Amino acid sequence: MINILLNGCNGKMGQVISDMLADNPNIHITAGIDTNPDKFSNYYKTYNDIDAVKEKADLLLDFSHADGINKVTQYCVDNGIALVVATTGLSQSQHEVLRQASEKIALFQSANMSYGVNVTIELCKNAAKALKGEFDIEIIEKHHNEKKDAPSGTALMIAKEINSTMNNGLEFIYDRYGKGARKHNEMGIYSLRGGTIPGEHLIVFAGKDEIIEIKHTALSRKIFAEGAVKAVEFIAAKKPGYYNMKDLIKEMCS
Amino acid sequence: MINILLNGCNGKMGQVISDMLADNPNIHITAGIDTNPDKFSNYYKTYNDIDAVKEKADLLLDFSHADGINKVTQYCVDNGIALVVATTGLSQSQHEVLRQASEKIALFQSANMSYGVNVTIELCKNAAKALKGEFDIEIIEKHHNEKKDAPSGTALMIAKEINSTMNNGLEFIYDRYGKGARKHNEMGIYSLRGGTIPGEHLIVFAGKDEIIEIKHTALSRKIFAEGAVKAVEFIAAKKPGYYNMKDLIKEMCS
Amino acid sequence: MINILLNGCNGKMGQVISDMLADNPNIHITAGIDTNPDKFSNYYKTYNDIDAVKEKADLLLDFSHADGINKVTQYCVDNGIALVVATTGLSQSQHEVLRQASEKIALFQSANMSYGVNVTIELCKNAAKALKGEFDIEIIEKHHNEKKDAPSGTALMIAKEINSTMNNGLEFIYDRYGKGARKHNEMGIYSLRGGTIPGEHLIVFAGKDEIIEIKHTALSRKIFAEGAVKAVEFIAAKKPGYYNMKDLIKEMCS
Amino acid sequence: MINILLNGCNGKMGQVISDMLADNPNIHITAGIDTNPDKFSNYYKTYNDIDAVKEKADLLLDFSHADGINKVTQYCVDNGIALVVATTGLSQSQHEVLRQASEKIALFQSANMSYGVNVTIELCKNAAKALKGEFDIEIIEKHHNEKKDAPSGTALMIAKEINSTMNNGLEFIYDRYGKGARKHNEMGIYSLRGGTIPGEHLIVFAGKDEIIEIKHTALSRKIFAEGAVKAVEFIAAKKPGYYNMKDLIKEMCS
Repeated sequence: MINILLNGCNGKMGQVISDMLADNPNIHITAGIDTNPDKFSNYYKTYNDIDAVKEKADLLLDFSHADGINKVTQYCVDNGIALVVATTGLSQSQHEVLRQASEKIALFQSANMSYGVNVTIELCKNAAKALKGEFDIEIIEKHHNEKKDAPSGTALMIAKEINSTMNNGLEFIYDRYGKGARKHNEMGIYSLRGGTIPGEHLIVFAGKDEIIEIKHTALSRKIFAEGAVKAVEFIAAKKPGYYNMKDLIKEMCS
Repeated sequence: MINILLNGCNGKMGQVISDMLADNPNIHITAGIDTNPDKFSNYYKTYNDIDAVKEKADLLLDFSHADGINKVTQYCVDNGIALVVATTGLSQSQHEVLRQASEKIALFQSANMSYGVNVTIELCKNAAKALKGEFDIEIIEKHHNEKKDAPSGTALMIAKEINSTMNNGLEFIYDRYGKGARKHNEMGIYSLRGGTIPGEHLIVFAGKDEIIEIKHTALSRKIFAEGAVKAVEFIAAKKPGYYNMKDLIKEMCS
Repeated sequence: MINILLNGCNGKMGQVISDMLADNPNIHITAGIDTNPDKFSNYYKTYNDIDAVKEKADLLLDFSHADGINKVTQYCVDNGIALVVATTGLSQSQHEVLRQASEKIALFQSANMSYGVNVTIELCKNAAKALKGEFDIEIIEKHHNEKKDAPSGTALMIAKEINSTMNNGLEFIYDRYGKGARKHNEMGIYSLRGGTIPGEHLIVFAGKDEIIEIKHTALSRKIFAEGAVKAVEFIAAKKPGYYNMKDLIKEMCS
Repeated sequence: MINILLNGCNGKMGQVISDMLADNPNIHITAGIDTNPDKFSNYYKTYNDIDAVKEKADLLLDFSHADGINKVTQYCVDNGIALVVATTGLSQSQHEVLRQASEKIALFQSANMSYGVNVTIELCKNAAKALKGEFDIEIIEKHHNEKKDAPSGTALMIAKEINSTMNNGLEFIYDRYGKGARKHNEMGIYSLRGGTIPGEHLIVFAGKDEIIEIKHTALSRKIFAEGAVKAVEFIAAKKPGYYNMKDLIKEMCS
């Protein structure tokens, strides 16, 4: 049994995690922390300050805001418990705080907590290595019509990871209107928006008379909670160190 | 048996048509016309000027250049034979010449000779009418990496035909990079280029929790020849008039 | 404002409808009926027997069981209010009861309440008519791994509607294992099952060097509620008669 | 410059290879062998028996019938030249002959010469390892309407390779008609047939609220020739040994 503290328990993702773990036999939320502590009738005690938490735990799962990450990290170091950081938008100095903490505790951090998205990225990198020089690579991502950013952060993450296998020799372009024939080193990234499409990333490798496509479809935001739960199970018994999704995938594959 | 003259017989499409009709029991090429008459060992006699043709025919199929269309049209009117115009890039005055000729002969003309593409357009128009106001419409087209224009002429044709069912209220956009959330009246049109992809047009209608997609995939340029053959069979016995793919589809559906 | 009674208000679909109409300015639930009346804290009064309902309404929406359909229909006839039947699994004699009632009240019934699925069916029928004789038609449907029936009712509905445009000349087959080359009049119907896929129906029209595909993707069961709401708005002011999705689509397209 | 002999030069694939190498600066066909030697006007000398060949070469590429493989292999051993076997349908004893020869010469053999198909297989194996236990795996393959076997050899190859990463614990099934809910250890394999579809293999990994798909599309049989050319370049300078596509992919990725 892994006992965890859930920071950001009253946010959207915090509530998804709480529902998901309600009847999980291996992971138990001993307490939650949120600046808005009385919003939900959680099945665990909820505090508005981490320093007030009395319950013991093996690990803290953070699905909160970047602002509080330093304090949360210090708490984990002080109490000698593991930390899973699912919070996004960390600054470089916050990353450095995490790195230093990882010398003392097991720490997991990923810019995208979906396990499937990270597997997709690994597949794309493998494909790019095997097909390099002969296949043109392009990305289409689809999301709902209220999404504000284009391309999606995930699409850019995939594009950069692919590019890293090709000496960063690709130039990203976002439309072709009136641009003439494709240049060999271009990677087109297109953002379709419509209805309530939850999220789809299609990576096309087009060669001479054959095409390889890798596609990830998200049906809900639960996938980020699923990935976080996987991360919790993965690092609960690990030695101090900085772990990420790549390590988790490697362990799953072995 | 329909006897036809094939203008532009030594071009790429002319040769595809010739091969396709070589053992067709209903359509016979009695003579070909091309400014480069000795290029191929055609199974019919080939002339370099239409005025030199001695063979009789019921119809002329033109897969040539817009430049010669007026002379070819006059020839059909003078000889009282039907005309199928598969040549693209006609000017407005050339269209007017065709219109006048269609008072005397049966004349078929389409900007895109693929029957399937035209069926796709009709489906999209029907879908747009049924789904209007509640579904966001976007188009993705894929072609080989040497294609010079983007978006494809076919994608623009589809977009305009859809728009015509919506009082032309849609604004076409070609990328979303940094543009914020989708506006309700936008129609995104994206052009993916890679490898030797022959041609694909995907029209996405995305609504609340459901998506309808219509896709046309071309595997080779033979589809333009197939459509031309269909057009030949369609107008061979028609009264004078200006016919297009919409008329052909209507007859096929009845 | 359309006032409605919601029969089956405490079932899965009844609750989806209730949520959806909670802030709808045009449709108001005046009372609900369910044999389990105290299950939910509905924002309208809930009865366990339709005869006990005191609230007035213009229409009854039935998302209940086929068992009670006769009583519900009689209630609507007696009170002179319209009826939308979203309940499935009706027997032939129940259909006859509905038909007789439709001489006195406006009655809407569909075996599939998703508007998008029905639009998809109309598109497929149009495509089948336009492409008949030259394109092979096959269907792939995908659903979650707990779905018990295969193929899905919707896939069979699509297949039958397509077949009806071809003089019912197609033979449905469900696998090709070791069967040799495709026969011209076959229609393959394949059922993929996996994970939590909500529902996807892909209809493939494959011809000589070109393919037309029509695809419907459901992201949640809300689409059935959306379709029911559309049906409510459609028949609220209609004369007595038996209406279905085809009539609704026709009105939307005009 | 690699000088090669092309066995089976007058077959369909032999002619595709010949066209492809006609202006290749690195590979030169010094002679062809075919039992029907005068069928084509090849740009190299064509023999009807390998023993009559006078031209020297570094390698023999075999795109012929399994019947002749032993004689061809002996020729390569006798002349100390490399061998690429693109011929399919080899018996176990023929495989043993190849294995023995590979102690003396560099020998490349694959049941499927498409490089892209083999990359697809490697991607699927990686995906299966990373997603095992939580994702349902199913395969859909599409081919033209004259294909006699179902499922395709490639689909079975993909299925078996995936299964090998899961202790061969999956049971292949070919339809779901009336079979009830999916069993956890099933892998559905479906064969769609229609028109002139050249070949498509889609592998679906469906999990909780997310789906990963890997798809290979063949546009023509040229991809087998391309793969053979890659194999020729790969083993031309290799030490004796038995090489396959996995080795080639590994070298490409390094």
